[in-house]
Amino acid sequence: MTTIDIQLSATRKEKPKEDQLAFGRNFTDHMFIMDYSTEKGWYDPRIVPYAPISLDPSTMVFHYGQTVFEGLKAYRTKDDQILLFRPEKNMERMNLSNERICIPHIDGEIVIEGLKKLIQVDRDWVPTAEGTSLYIRPFVIPTEPFLGVAPATQYRFMIIMSPVGSYYKEGIQPVRIFVENEYVRAVAGGTGTAKTGGNYAASLKAQEEATKRGYTQVLWLDGVEKKYVEEVGSMNVFFKIKGEVVTPQLNGSILEGITRNSILQLLRHWDIPVSERRISMDEIREAYDKGELEEAFGTGTAAVISPIGEFLYEEKQILINEGKTGELSKKLYDTLTGIQNGTLKDEFGWTVTVENEKVLSK
Amino acid sequence: MTTIDIQLSATRKEKPKEDQLAFGRNFTDHMFIMDYSTEKGWYDPRIVPYAPISLDPSTMVFHYGQTVFEGLKAYRTKDDQILLFRPEKNMERMNLSNERICIPHIDGEIVIEGLKKLIQVDRDWVPTAEGTSLYIRPFVIPTEPFLGVAPATQYRFMIIMSPVGSYYKEGIQPVRIFVENEYVRAVAGGTGTAKTGGNYAASLKAQEEATKRGYTQVLWLDGVEKKYVEEVGSMNVFFKIKGEVVTPQLNGSILEGITRNSILQLLRHWDIPVSERRISMDEIREAYDKGELEEAFGTGTAAVISPIGEFLYEEKQILINEGKTGELSKKLYDTLTGIQNGTLKDEFGWTVTVENEKVLSK
Repeated sequence: MTTIDIQLSATRKEKPKEDQLAFGRNFTDHMFIMDYSTEKGWYDPRIVPYAPISLDPSTMVFHYGQTVFEGLKAYRTKDDQILLFRPEKNMERMNLSNERICIPHIDGEIVIEGLKKLIQVDRDWVPTAEGTSLYIRPFVIPTEPFLGVAPATQYRFMIIMSPVGSYYKEGIQPVRIFVENEYVRAVAGGTGTAKTGGNYAASLKAQEEATKRGYTQVLWLDGVEKKYVEEVGSMNVFFKIKGEVVTPQLNGSILEGITRNSILQLLRHWDIPVSERRISMDEIREAYDKGELEEAFGTGTAAVISPIGEFLYEEKQILINEGKTGELSKKLYDTLTGIQNGTLKDEFGWTVTVENEKVLSK
Repeated sequence: MTTIDIQLSATRKEKPKEDQLAFGRNFTDHMFIMDYSTEKGWYDPRIVPYAPISLDPSTMVFHYGQTVFEGLKAYRTKDDQILLFRPEKNMERMNLSNERICIPHIDGEIVIEGLKKLIQVDRDWVPTAEGTSLYIRPFVIPTEPFLGVAPATQYRFMIIMSPVGSYYKEGIQPVRIFVENEYVRAVAGGTGTAKTGGNYAASLKAQEEATKRGYTQVLWLDGVEKKYVEEVGSMNVFFKIKGEVVTPQLNGSILEGITRNSILQLLRHWDIPVSERRISMDEIREAYDKGELEEAFGTGTAAVISPIGEFLYEEKQILINEGKTGELSKKLYDTLTGIQNGTLKDEFGWTVTVENEKVLSK
């Protein structure tokens, strides 16, 4: 069993007010670090005061994008427990991402143990107000100072945490989506299934242009025929057509969302017809024309469920459920957030409790 | 006119021996830096001692791959002049890359002025032995501490420099190339035309598998049909078929190499038939079967010309010119390196002389 060293901070930062939490701007007092070298493997897992890291300008992370990240949340329940949502799935996916871009495998158990300790240390940072949570960002960067294009021989794994406000401050709201048919996010054989930096850099331009036109997010089409639906922004996407829920199958270019996986389980548990398959924008437009497109929503860690009120596809508007949040979208949102924050019973064994233990330096 | 501040290092590092220069491992005594903020634009261009940079763990460069880089070389001529090769082309391309991933435009003139000053400061680092050069790495990273997926509002542009040995220590040598038909480097609408980190991360896995099988590099096919030739490793690729030189046209997914551009100019100058067009592996195999595939080579800053002796495509070998360096490949290599290192007359106005001036702190 690897021991996690703990070095507590001598000072504590002032916490932001809970009604003023912005996403990803404030960070807790500590962070988890683990380093890798070819000789030692992953070594020195430790919790240390949150602080800048110093890197040579030739460090590979600045040049060749060999980075992977994850995102999950910790929630405080009404009876003051701290819950994580399926953290082992994040570690599974991180290792799939690692595999794709030649980062060495990481032991998920050590990381989850480290994460729990980190949360125990910074427990006061998990916010209490409804809809708030502690956003957790595990990530890996190559730390070798070398300009050769090759997998690095040194890496750093880190976890940082940031208290975040409610995604829907004025209640759950549908978004307007621009269907992108110029820029491509990913293609089979590329890195679309990995949570790696380059996919997000690739998405910025289309997002910027969609924003200028007044749309919240982009819907990505396949990179080959530009006909089939892939993802929405950085969420997976679902459609309800004539009572059946359809989502694109895992095809080698979309990211397998943990929320996506949970939603599919919930739908099947409720005996709602669900299908993972290829779906084209033509099919969606046809369903819309026939009045059969009942709902659409995105799924992801940030918003959990993001109802879609409108698509703009080839300059034509597809209005969904009169632009209002659909019944199923709302039910899925209430159920999943209820399980996550402990107000609903977790029948699926998804939540993991972080014990309330006092942690000392060691 | 922007003033470039100069702060010279109090100490100088020991230089590596010229016969032991490895690529991208040793760096000169100084570096060029310029920062960006939304309010100020690019500001504070400066030359400072080479040193680590300190960044908050939430800095966007660690998460979303919004990075761009360039590569060029400075050569020392026999009469002790320092030459750059078409540096303005690197700045043009950097701005095309920037545009694709939402990094603000950089004034190429300021950068080239800064680069010249940096070389003047570190002039002793430009090696003298035949085939050696000073590799120059300009790059941009987002420096804003923020976990939101959006273009950053703060960036740092840097230039670091590394003395490099001869690419061909034992004379120019043909390489063996594995034609990749599982992994994809880029697709039209993606980021293939930009020199951004994610493209290189995406290439590592295929390169690793090719290396295991005994091949030096990968030849990438198009991401849509996996039939058409794109690039070799991180080089552009040329074929000589029945006296005509063919290279893939700029199609929105390959990178426009500056060496590629120079080779095309040279060939046209020599009245050698040349064609930029789509070319399939089937066509190359057919030419090979008919005995019409005369030469193949890659072009890039590192090797300048890299003759290709063999392709492995769908488990069948395509042997080129009996695995030996072709006559045209050799002539192109000699001519281009001759212009670069000043032994041949530069009829194209490609080289830029760095004046030998003493630079003081200011």
